[in-house]
Amino acid sequence: MTDTSDLAPELDVSEWVGEPSPLESLRGRVVLIEAFQMLCPGCINYGLPQAQKVHRMLEGVTVIGLHTVFEHHAVTGPDALKVFLAEFGIQFPVGIDRHENDAMPVTMKRYQLQGTPSTLVIDRAGRLRLSHFGKIDDLALGSILGRLLDEDHDANPDAS
Amino acid sequence: MTDTSDLAPELDVSEWVGEPSPLESLRGRVVLIEAFQMLCPGCINYGLPQAQKVHRMLEGVTVIGLHTVFEHHAVTGPDALKVFLAEFGIQFPVGIDRHENDAMPVTMKRYQLQGTPSTLVIDRAGRLRLSHFGKIDDLALGSILGRLLDEDHDANPDAS
Amino acid sequence: MTDTSDLAPELDVSEWVGEPSPLESLRGRVVLIEAFQMLCPGCINYGLPQAQKVHRMLEGVTVIGLHTVFEHHAVTGPDALKVFLAEFGIQFPVGIDRHENDAMPVTMKRYQLQGTPSTLVIDRAGRLRLSHFGKIDDLALGSILGRLLDEDHDANPDAS
Amino acid sequence: MTDTSDLAPELDVSEWVGEPSPLESLRGRVVLIEAFQMLCPGCINYGLPQAQKVHRMLEGVTVIGLHTVFEHHAVTGPDALKVFLAEFGIQFPVGIDRHENDAMPVTMKRYQLQGTPSTLVIDRAGRLRLSHFGKIDDLALGSILGRLLDEDHDANPDAS
Repeated sequence: MTDTSDLAPELDVSEWVGEPSPLESLRGRVVLIEAFQMLCPGCINYGLPQAQKVHRMLEGVTVIGLHTVFEHHAVTGPDALKVFLAEFGIQFPVGIDRHENDAMPVTMKRYQLQGTPSTLVIDRAGRLRLSHFGKIDDLALGSILGRLLDEDHDANPDAS
Repeated sequence: MTDTSDLAPELDVSEWVGEPSPLESLRGRVVLIEAFQMLCPGCINYGLPQAQKVHRMLEGVTVIGLHTVFEHHAVTGPDALKVFLAEFGIQFPVGIDRHENDAMPVTMKRYQLQGTPSTLVIDRAGRLRLSHFGKIDDLALGSILGRLLDEDHDANPDAS
Repeated sequence: MTDTSDLAPELDVSEWVGEPSPLESLRGRVVLIEAFQMLCPGCINYGLPQAQKVHRMLEGVTVIGLHTVFEHHAVTGPDALKVFLAEFGIQFPVGIDRHENDAMPVTMKRYQLQGTPSTLVIDRAGRLRLSHFGKIDDLALGSILGRLLDEDHDANPDAS
Repeated sequence: MTDTSDLAPELDVSEWVGEPSPLESLRGRVVLIEAFQMLCPGCINYGLPQAQKVHRMLEGVTVIGLHTVFEHHAVTGPDALKVFLAEFGIQFPVGIDRHENDAMPVTMKRYQLQGTPSTLVIDRAGRLRLSHFGKIDDLALGSILGRLLDEDHDANPDAS
């Protein structure tokens, strides 16, 4: 059994566009979370297209988007996001990271993300195995996901 | 002198972001107008990057953006557009096509555009020489602009 | 122990450019073999660049080239190949597939390759796990290699 | 009439693959000459694909290849070149630059080329208007060719 202190923090989402997908419901799956903002050029140019490709190509991986708005809140609210997702053909569920009294939303702070796009990978046991800010090559990302797909989480040496 | 009946219709713009640039003020210049919507994937992926490249590379060509919103008006207003232009580093002036009582804005109708992105090219005499919907190859666009740059509009055989 | 009947056939190479790398010497390693011809456009445009990227990015994978000439033999001999490899900066060892009395070389026939480029992947136990003719996406290839990198070949259920 | 001292030097070609195309026969045409070597990565990756695109897209431009071998002569002779041109689908005529007693061939020296790929552009009056070593953007090249296509060489101010 995995020590719960090792678990990746749960997503704190104010609204899901598509199927609600809390991490707790995804134990046993390899999960890729693409943290993005809808008006961030790097997210549109490479982060989201790569997440879509993982969603399309790697059956064993569950892909989730996380809209981590930390700037331009007024023009990137839920209504704008829904138009964006439809126009760009995003097929996977997207959670809207919750805001409290801060520009930076809650989950983004929990994961100490430096900006967008950021790519997070969670293993079958629910542990964070990658947190990458910026561009990551398809070959490198594929090899990381492939290793986790093959991994038997009960047999993992550092699980108890 | 050019017969005014040959002139490309003036842009009907409710607000300029950047230097106001009515066509009338640009006689004698070759002008490229990139008609786009800020949440249109083709505009972001190739239309606007190409217009930025023309702006950067071809000194003799004046580049203007035209925000021809015909869908999703609520989330692509002037405030959202300004954020978009800043985030994507658009350096040329952008006019917001005026709305009356129709989803399709005024200038877009005048030019009978079929959608976005559309690339319009106006010659030194103020006449419309290209109206292209969708992707156009850099080599082809470059050769069209090169021809117009070289053209002496007073000597033009069909001008009187 | 792996049944030797499961082993990928050995490479039959008339000359190595770089370190001789028979498969037998690579047990315990994940191996990618890029079968190519030096005047094949698909090999130059995507097969070899991808193999170079694997060589550069994925430490655990041993990359080998295999020059499987089945056409234009007169102009793609060892001297031409060596110039090609130097000009294109190929860093990994390349074996020249042996010819007998046939246009198609020996190893190419053993592996029943359909053409070039073909990408072969061998696991740590020496078994062929992928034989792909034509283009394969970086993400897909990365995930296959990642799975094999993680795999403990002694623990593999179908090994005895 | 153009002063012959202004004319681009004639190509000195030992053999043509395809239609012989001396510059003298092309007066009145805009001509693009792609100087390349068959085992030069930049030529294969961008120089020749761009020349093929000009050939396909810009009707008014005559495209010629010039095989300016200055290294690896032994493996890039006429037989190897013909295989290369067939495999890479080169549709335009290619002249083989003549060798005398020097590594660098005759036409390459006449034009003082620095290396391959080099792109040369000749106007309708037979004058050299561009000599570019290395990569040139499609938009920039298109605009140069467009200007020359539009140019009336008899009316050209510096022609007499």
